[in-house]
Amino acid sequence: MQSIKNLWLSLQPVSSVCPKNRACPACSGRALRSKSSTAVGAKAANRVCGLYTAIPHATLRSNLLSERFCTISLQCFSFAAVNQKKIFMSLVVVGSMAFDAIETPFGKSDKIIGGAGTYIAWCASNFTPVKQISVVGGDFPQAELDALTARNVTLEGVQIKKDEKTFFWSGKYHLDMNTRDTLVTELNVLGDFQPVVPESYQDCEFLMLGNLAPSVQLSVIEQLKTKPKLVVLDTMNFWMDIALDDLKKVLAKTDVLMVNDSEARQLSGDYSLVRAAKKIMQMGPKYLIIKKGEHGALLFHENSVFYAPALPLEEVFDPTGAGDTFAGGFIGHIAKTKDISFENMKTAIIVGSALASYCVEKFGTERLREIKKADIETRLNEFVQLASFDIALV
Amino acid sequence: MQSIKNLWLSLQPVSSVCPKNRACPACSGRALRSKSSTAVGAKAANRVCGLYTAIPHATLRSNLLSERFCTISLQCFSFAAVNQKKIFMSLVVVGSMAFDAIETPFGKSDKIIGGAGTYIAWCASNFTPVKQISVVGGDFPQAELDALTARNVTLEGVQIKKDEKTFFWSGKYHLDMNTRDTLVTELNVLGDFQPVVPESYQDCEFLMLGNLAPSVQLSVIEQLKTKPKLVVLDTMNFWMDIALDDLKKVLAKTDVLMVNDSEARQLSGDYSLVRAAKKIMQMGPKYLIIKKGEHGALLFHENSVFYAPALPLEEVFDPTGAGDTFAGGFIGHIAKTKDISFENMKTAIIVGSALASYCVEKFGTERLREIKKADIETRLNEFVQLASFDIALV
Repeated sequence: MQSIKNLWLSLQPVSSVCPKNRACPACSGRALRSKSSTAVGAKAANRVCGLYTAIPHATLRSNLLSERFCTISLQCFSFAAVNQKKIFMSLVVVGSMAFDAIETPFGKSDKIIGGAGTYIAWCASNFTPVKQISVVGGDFPQAELDALTARNVTLEGVQIKKDEKTFFWSGKYHLDMNTRDTLVTELNVLGDFQPVVPESYQDCEFLMLGNLAPSVQLSVIEQLKTKPKLVVLDTMNFWMDIALDDLKKVLAKTDVLMVNDSEARQLSGDYSLVRAAKKIMQMGPKYLIIKKGEHGALLFHENSVFYAPALPLEEVFDPTGAGDTFAGGFIGHIAKTKDISFENMKTAIIVGSALASYCVEKFGTERLREIKKADIETRLNEFVQLASFDIALV
Repeated sequence: MQSIKNLWLSLQPVSSVCPKNRACPACSGRALRSKSSTAVGAKAANRVCGLYTAIPHATLRSNLLSERFCTISLQCFSFAAVNQKKIFMSLVVVGSMAFDAIETPFGKSDKIIGGAGTYIAWCASNFTPVKQISVVGGDFPQAELDALTARNVTLEGVQIKKDEKTFFWSGKYHLDMNTRDTLVTELNVLGDFQPVVPESYQDCEFLMLGNLAPSVQLSVIEQLKTKPKLVVLDTMNFWMDIALDDLKKVLAKTDVLMVNDSEARQLSGDYSLVRAAKKIMQMGPKYLIIKKGEHGALLFHENSVFYAPALPLEEVFDPTGAGDTFAGGFIGHIAKTKDISFENMKTAIIVGSALASYCVEKFGTERLREIKKADIETRLNEFVQLASFDIALV
């Protein structure tokens, strides 16, 4: 992947780019718009490298169209021809796809679609294509899989065990919505899940390990032939209790760890979050995100720290999946921008927080399915208003 | 006060201003620096309005000098002559001055100086002169009073009851430093405290009501002949339990209320802080600050909200007085800038948070006595780093 990027960058000048002027999905930069017609470029691309041959332009969905137009340049045909499958999708997400039944002070849901992997995929696909790794039973609705495919989520890595049942979790939230009791846990297909990374996922540049058994997360890391640019890990106290050794192996291969405040304290054995962060960053992760729910999130890296606010909400209807939603927004923004700097991670945390603030407005993934790009932008602007202050006045 | 300000503003052009180019303490604006010598202006002022007659220039402390130089203008002599006592000090602080004995997991203090009024005065005096209202016994050290006087804290409104004892509180913090047990409370002079507002405090533009019995707070408000530009109220759950009716009377005359999250919930009877804020703002305050300790603070006003972060600290040595310190920094910045807009209150909250982050580093007021302007600026810059993010990247 790196060599493709270098090739792209070495080809100067760029004579034609994406008609929407979006960043090239294969490089970090944003090519300059040229004077030549994109239609001419597209035609030339068709003829020389065959990038568009398989899919006539008219039938391309607009989001795909804009991504793929980036490569149209007489000097870039060699780049475009390298491997069209490898170029455009390099975010791999691992996580459960499940059924949930949720009870809150506001009501009770039916058996609805849930699972960390589901939430992450719905959110990250707002920003970038996703290659999903998971397992479901024969009872998992085909319509749900189709809805993800329609959002550019590749399901080649999702095992469907026709004769088995999907993972099921049921829980009841207390009045404060911060604590909950688990009523039912049926592991089903998740009990002996052996993830298989398809060959087409080997271009993985960004790996999002959703909350799952550390042994499953480790297996995915070890199946990848090339180390991804960034490995992000979400986990929970449950795995610290029963699989700490496995978790430590995953941590050693992790770049960014996401946990909540009590988990950070448990993992480090230190009550002070600043000291906890230092100890955890010695276990492997170079970046640590501590989620504090209604109190926002902290990002630690070396001696730097960032405090992301949470939007004060009048009502939290259902907090299920808020952490996974946060993870999906975070990794979606990172994968879209291909920028793993501390500064860009701060932005990614705000994106994750904005999506999480939508997630809790309705049961399950319902609200995440409704929101559009404009909604996300509206909420991001609310975060800017929420957190901005002028210290020059002092 | 308003008429003085209008007079000042109507006198154009200004021929000479503060040699440090600081804002005129009697008006919101910053006068333009003129070409004429400030020495000439000072001499003229001496001759015509007598502003400097009583105190020779050479003996003026530099901070006083810069405040008082603002008025030197041939056209402003009438302004300068109005009442020199009234012009320069208009922040009145009401609060306890006390002895504390503190026990934390890190150690135990002797009987040290404490009290809400003490913390507020030490902090606000970093930014502006303070007129203090309080009561102490004959056992309160004269050196402590002198230390405040040296910081431009006027003590005319502090009653000294020579034959009685100063208020004493002793408490022990739990391991998490968020909860504490009160070991001893000796009200002493505070038991029958009847505040008396001196005539020289009648210019009060900003009134900071530190945590005290609502009846005492109300008495101060009622003794002021002119309504201050801004009344800021700090209170606690204790008064909601035993003096709610009095508290509601104070709230009706309050512009800005400061409480912590559990107190906001208690006062409003609503768990959601957003709804709690709406209900509380119907009780009188136009602005509500909800302090959340290590989780920062929220500022509500009409439909706007601001989330101020708290600096993540490796060690909290002693949280006593952090809330009062926050209040002192907040009102100090407001009184200095004389700007009561929502935007400036955001800045004031950051100033309060920066000071509070110093306060908890040592026992009592110890750290607050050490810090200089440069320290405050350093910490303010840390807050900018802590909270800034770039959403344009999305």
